[in-house]
Amino acid sequence: MHHVKHIRIVGCGLIGTSAGLSLSRSGFRVSLHDPSPTAQAIARDMGAGQTGVTDAPDLVLVAAPPDVAAHVVADELRRWPQAVVTDVASVKEQVLNGVRAAGGDLSRYVGSHPMAGRERSGAVAARADLFDGRTWVICPGDDSAAEAVAAVKAVAEATGAATVTMDPVEHDHAVAAVSHVPQLASSLVAARLRELSDAAIRLSGQGIRDVTRIAESDPMLWTQILSGNAAAVAPVLDALLDDLTAVRTAITDLAGTGADTDTAPGARQVLARTIAEGQLGHARIPGKHGSAPTAYATVVVVVPDEPGQLGRLFNDMGEAGINLEDLHLEHGEGIPVGLAEVSVLPSVVDRLIDELGAKGWTVHR
Amino acid sequence: MHHVKHIRIVGCGLIGTSAGLSLSRSGFRVSLHDPSPTAQAIARDMGAGQTGVTDAPDLVLVAAPPDVAAHVVADELRRWPQAVVTDVASVKEQVLNGVRAAGGDLSRYVGSHPMAGRERSGAVAARADLFDGRTWVICPGDDSAAEAVAAVKAVAEATGAATVTMDPVEHDHAVAAVSHVPQLASSLVAARLRELSDAAIRLSGQGIRDVTRIAESDPMLWTQILSGNAAAVAPVLDALLDDLTAVRTAITDLAGTGADTDTAPGARQVLARTIAEGQLGHARIPGKHGSAPTAYATVVVVVPDEPGQLGRLFNDMGEAGINLEDLHLEHGEGIPVGLAEVSVLPSVVDRLIDELGAKGWTVHR
Repeated sequence: MHHVKHIRIVGCGLIGTSAGLSLSRSGFRVSLHDPSPTAQAIARDMGAGQTGVTDAPDLVLVAAPPDVAAHVVADELRRWPQAVVTDVASVKEQVLNGVRAAGGDLSRYVGSHPMAGRERSGAVAARADLFDGRTWVICPGDDSAAEAVAAVKAVAEATGAATVTMDPVEHDHAVAAVSHVPQLASSLVAARLRELSDAAIRLSGQGIRDVTRIAESDPMLWTQILSGNAAAVAPVLDALLDDLTAVRTAITDLAGTGADTDTAPGARQVLARTIAEGQLGHARIPGKHGSAPTAYATVVVVVPDEPGQLGRLFNDMGEAGINLEDLHLEHGEGIPVGLAEVSVLPSVVDRLIDELGAKGWTVHR
Repeated sequence: MHHVKHIRIVGCGLIGTSAGLSLSRSGFRVSLHDPSPTAQAIARDMGAGQTGVTDAPDLVLVAAPPDVAAHVVADELRRWPQAVVTDVASVKEQVLNGVRAAGGDLSRYVGSHPMAGRERSGAVAARADLFDGRTWVICPGDDSAAEAVAAVKAVAEATGAATVTMDPVEHDHAVAAVSHVPQLASSLVAARLRELSDAAIRLSGQGIRDVTRIAESDPMLWTQILSGNAAAVAPVLDALLDDLTAVRTAITDLAGTGADTDTAPGARQVLARTIAEGQLGHARIPGKHGSAPTAYATVVVVVPDEPGQLGRLFNDMGEAGINLEDLHLEHGEGIPVGLAEVSVLPSVVDRLIDELGAKGWTVHR
C-alpha cells in the first residue's frame, strides 16, 4: 500500500498551516508552498513544515482558496505523477468538475473537507489542534482509486479528526443546509441591526448573539463558497423563502387585526407550525446542549455552589491529566448547586468519569 | 414617595416565580397567585412568596401569558386601587392598548419587560438570579405617573437587573429586530434539517448550532409573542424577505453558470454585500466576544497551557470571593498558552483584575 511519509501542503492559510503543524507533530515530513513568500515563511517559522523542498511528495494537500482549488489540484496532479492529491475546499462537486475539465488524473484525486475553522484566518491564527475532534469529510469521485481514498483518510485522521465518507454531491447538499444557508440567515438577521437606535440595540440578549455569531465571517471567502455551491444552496434557499413568505403573510394578517384571536384564521397555526418544525430540525443535531462539536464527549458535573468548588474540579481534572476542551456553566437556583457541562475528547471520557467519581464528584453522561 | 414593601405576583411561571425568589431574598414581602393551585403551591414551596394573602399590595407584577396579560392587568388595577401594576410581556404596545380598552387606570400602569429567560419554562425552572446582570426595560405610557414609573424601576433593579426606559412602540420595534425576527430565522433554518440524511446531519458544526440554538423554543409561547408584536415584526420581516429574495436571485444566476467568474454579473457583489452588511450589524451588538449579556464585564486571562493552571485560576477567583458568571476557553497554539474569557458582574471586575494581578496572572480587559 502507498504509504504516506512526505506531505506537501500548497496554501499556507489557516487550514494549510494548521494541517502542517498537526502533521509535523505526528511525525510526517511536511513541505510547504504558497504563492506568497511571506505566508510560506510564517508557516515555516511556526513549525508547520519545510520550504524550498523539491523532491516528490507522497500526498499533496491543496489548501488554496475555493475559486482556484481545481486549477491548483490539476497542476499538482500533473507535476507529481505518483502523488495522491486532496483539497480542502468546502464545496466538492465544483472542484471535481474543474479538475476533470482540466484533464487531471482523477484516479489520484480525492477531494475532502475538514469541518473546522475559526473566525480569524491566515497562518498566524493556525493551531496544531484545529482538527482535534472535528469531522473531516472524504469525498471520493467515481474514478478515485481505493488506495488514494485510504491515503487521504489516514492523513485526515492523523490530524485528530474523525472521518466521514460521502459522495461529493451529497456533501454539497449537506453543507448547503448545515453551513451555507445558516451563514446567509445569520448575516441577513444581523444586517437588520444596522439601523437600530443605540437604546434598541441594548436589548440584545443571548438569542441574537447566538444567531448572529457567524455574521462576523469574511465576505470574500463566503462569496467564493456560496457561488461555488450555488447549485446546492438554491433549493435550500427556495424552501426557506417559501416558508418565510408564508410567515410574512401570517404576520401581515395578524398586524391588521390586533389581539382578537378570532380573526386572521390560520395565521397563528402557520407561526406555531414554523416554530415546531424548527424544534424538530434542531433536535436532529448530534451532541448534547448544542454546544459541543460532534466528536467531543460531554458530561455534566454537579458543582456545589460555594466559592472554590469550580477550582477544585479543574484541579482534579488537571491531576488526572485530562484536557478540558470546552466548558459551559449552568447556574442552579432553588437548589444550591451549579452544573458544569465539561467537554473532552471521546478517548478520555471514560477515564474522566472514573477519576472524578473517585474524587467524590457526581457526574452525569 | 410610594414605598413598595408588599409585592403581589400574578402568574407563577418561570418569570413570576424567579421574580418572587429574587424579591423575597431582597427583603420584600411577596404574595403569589396563579389560576393553577399547583403552580402556586410549587412557587410557594420553592420560597418565592406566600399564598392566600388578601391584604392590598403596593405593587402588582403580572407575569401571565402575553395573550391574557392586558386583561389581568386591568383586573388587578381595578381590584387594588392604590397599587402600581406592571406586566412582563415581551410586547408592550398591545398590552397598553388592551388595558386602555378595558378601562384600566393608566396612571398606575407601567408596562415592563425583563430580557431574561431560559429554554425551560415553568416554576420548576425558576432561579433567584435569573435577572442578575440582565436588562429590564421599563415602558411607561403617556399617562403613567412618575411615581409609578419610579416604583417599577426600583423593583426591577432589586432583582439585580439594569433598567432601560423606552417608549412602548420603540420597545416593540427593538425586540422585533433583536429577538422576534432572529427567533423566526433560527426556526426556519433549523426546519431545513428535518429532511437531511443521518450522514449529512453529522456535518453540523458550531455555526449551525449557534444559529439554531433558540429553535428549541416553545411554539405556543412564541405564537403569542409574534402575533402580539405582528405590527412591529412585519417591516423587519419585509426587509429580510427583500434581501433574501435578492440573494436567491444571485444564487440562481450563479447556479446556472458554474465556476466562470465572468458570468452572472453582479451576483457575487450581492452576496459579498449581504455578508458585509451582516458584519456591520453584528458589530453593533454590545459586549465582547458575543457571549456575555450586556451587563456582564468580561476580561481575558492568559492561562499557561499546563495541567492544573486553569484550576489555579478558579481557586484564586474563589479565594477572592468573586463569582464566575460565565466562561469561554480559547486554546492558543503556536504559543503555549490558552485564553480564558471570564465574565463577572460589572460591580466586581475592578477587584477581579486587582486580585488576579496580585497573584501573578496576566489579565486583559
